[in-house]
Amino acid sequence: MSSFDLAEHPHRRYNPLSGEWVLVSPHRAKRPWQGQQEEVNRETRLEYDPSCYLCPTNERASGEHNPDYKTTYAFDNDFGALQPTTPTGSFTKGGLLRAESERGIAKVICFSPRHDLTLPDMEVEDIRKVVDLWQQEYEELGMLDFINHVQIFENKGATMGCSNPHPHGQIWAQSSIPGGPAKETQHQAEYYEKHQRSLLQDYLAIELEEKTRIVYQNEHFVALVPFWAVWPFETMILPKRHLQHIGQMKDAEKDAFADAIKRLTMVYDKVFNVSFPYSSGIHQRPTDGQEHVAWHLHMHFFPPLLRSASVKKFMVGYEMMGDPQRDITPEASAERLRDLV
Amino acid sequence: MSSFDLAEHPHRRYNPLSGEWVLVSPHRAKRPWQGQQEEVNRETRLEYDPSCYLCPTNERASGEHNPDYKTTYAFDNDFGALQPTTPTGSFTKGGLLRAESERGIAKVICFSPRHDLTLPDMEVEDIRKVVDLWQQEYEELGMLDFINHVQIFENKGATMGCSNPHPHGQIWAQSSIPGGPAKETQHQAEYYEKHQRSLLQDYLAIELEEKTRIVYQNEHFVALVPFWAVWPFETMILPKRHLQHIGQMKDAEKDAFADAIKRLTMVYDKVFNVSFPYSSGIHQRPTDGQEHVAWHLHMHFFPPLLRSASVKKFMVGYEMMGDPQRDITPEASAERLRDLV
Ligand SMILES: O=P(O)(O)O[C@H]1O[C@H](CO)[C@@H](O)[C@H](O)[C@H]1O
Ligand SMILES: O=P(O)(O)O[C@H]1O[C@H](CO)[C@@H](O)[C@H](O)[C@H]1O
Repeated sequence: MSSFDLAEHPHRRYNPLSGEWVLVSPHRAKRPWQGQQEEVNRETRLEYDPSCYLCPTNERASGEHNPDYKTTYAFDNDFGALQPTTPTGSFTKGGLLRAESERGIAKVICFSPRHDLTLPDMEVEDIRKVVDLWQQEYEELGMLDFINHVQIFENKGATMGCSNPHPHGQIWAQSSIPGGPAKETQHQAEYYEKHQRSLLQDYLAIELEEKTRIVYQNEHFVALVPFWAVWPFETMILPKRHLQHIGQMKDAEKDAFADAIKRLTMVYDKVFNVSFPYSSGIHQRPTDGQEHVAWHLHMHFFPPLLRSASVKKFMVGYEMMGDPQRDITPEASAERLRDLV
Repeated sequence: MSSFDLAEHPHRRYNPLSGEWVLVSPHRAKRPWQGQQEEVNRETRLEYDPSCYLCPTNERASGEHNPDYKTTYAFDNDFGALQPTTPTGSFTKGGLLRAESERGIAKVICFSPRHDLTLPDMEVEDIRKVVDLWQQEYEELGMLDFINHVQIFENKGATMGCSNPHPHGQIWAQSSIPGGPAKETQHQAEYYEKHQRSLLQDYLAIELEEKTRIVYQNEHFVALVPFWAVWPFETMILPKRHLQHIGQMKDAEKDAFADAIKRLTMVYDKVFNVSFPYSSGIHQRPTDGQEHVAWHLHMHFFPPLLRSASVKKFMVGYEMMGDPQRDITPEASAERLRDLV
């Protein structure tokens, strides 16, 4: 019997941030595909679209008009999933039905006045303005009494449920700490307690030594495919310094963060020669007033494409019932991405 | 300020089976939709498709030919994500990179020789034969030394990554207990420890009293929209008796289980007048040799459609980074489904 080989044999990998496992089946990349294909959208868009509710000066569903903004623009989502005026309250029955009201603020963040751009098309100095806005929003929202968590994210592409191609992201800020960050809070705290060091900084040291999963790095940030990546081309951008949150980023770090985002998303677009869909999001210190010394900011990228511009990975039956599953190894994905830098 | 109302205000609901929360935003069902539409497939299929590798007598990728089966048929997946021959082994580095080899068996379960049917089109007595096969596979696979968990599931429809419309499901049986069932094992055990009763039987008693989330019931089974449902039309089929696993089902229960599956999936097809895509799966006692007295078998249905046959719910940015989120309330969904029984 041959000996166990990560590049050949089915195995599970542990995610020390979330405490969850992923099933890796490297041999399975060979199976044929007869299933659904995504539509590939290669339309060229206008710089300004009169029917787009995110373009400068246009009217939104609320009846308000956007200002004639020149860089970035943030506003409260007209159909926000969270609202600041939600009355407090809870509901419970038999200890098994449990609900709690949730207050929050949902914002839309326009990255650029140009309707036809995406992050990888933008100049680093313009992405830097997006980083500045994220920083400002994190600090302002986080300061509010009833906001204990600020989730900055982007859904890019129709495949990711994005309903408008104008370059934009969102922020959902709320009273509770959602499940994803709550797990990361717990695991980072346990690690810090035990080792007096940041989990992700120790992890980064291993990755910088191994090199096999690194995609790109600059002076302050590293983009890599995590050892425990779930999505075929999943990556994470990590600061080299132990930063808890975006509020602590200095000017040079914000420039470097913008550069890392630009370089990584440009690489993505080259993988299948298509504007690469993904959801991204920044995980960082909750704004609940605790110190959270263990927290190490990072940005996740979860792109669904697997085999081509039109064949994505489906996280369905087994993945919904059991554990996430992937075919190509994180090392093979990282190599492919690194070759395109 | 109005008082907190589950039908009006954003809130979180707790899932006592998984220990996770879902964000419910009832007011948001009103927002307009400009995003991606699914293709609606209304093609009529042949009873026998000579190019289908699941139809009787046809050749599969392995070169083997399917028998001329008349009811159901199970075989080892030619591209299984799990393999029985995987060598044992593990990999670790710095405590932060951790992988373990995983042995298992991946099977395909053909529900019918007829290429053109789906579960809701089949007769109850033919679905009963699928239940018999599930029972047999659970028992036979579970008996194997290296199999500690048997996951029975179905991906229905191209939207759910199903690569062949021939009616079939899968079984992934493996050495580890995957994350989903592991959480349910823990929460059911904790509840049982505390109350000496089954969590899901107590939950069912509440639901049968409240009635608002019940979709259908027969003598032995109930189909309902869980209070903590994530997907717009998510449901669960539960036995009224405290069954740990499908091996314990008596004949009358297997008939009733088949009837509940038929009735529920028929209702689904009526919601948008389209063959309703979903992933379903049976959660039940792990086959690790432990007694697991707390385990209460149930079948999850996770269908993605939200607004129409072509507009689905996207579990993306916030959902991937934070918590799952839904717009319409579980009560509203249950009412809609119940009206179609
Ligand atoms: O095995 P299939 O039907 O080819 O594949 C489908 O189901 C699997 C199990 O849920 C998933 O891992 C795949 O992503 C999906 O496309
Ligand atoms: O807010 P949008 O872009 O309309 O909606 C999109 O992102 C949200 C947050 O991830 C999701 O809840 C929606 O399902 C998705 O379609």
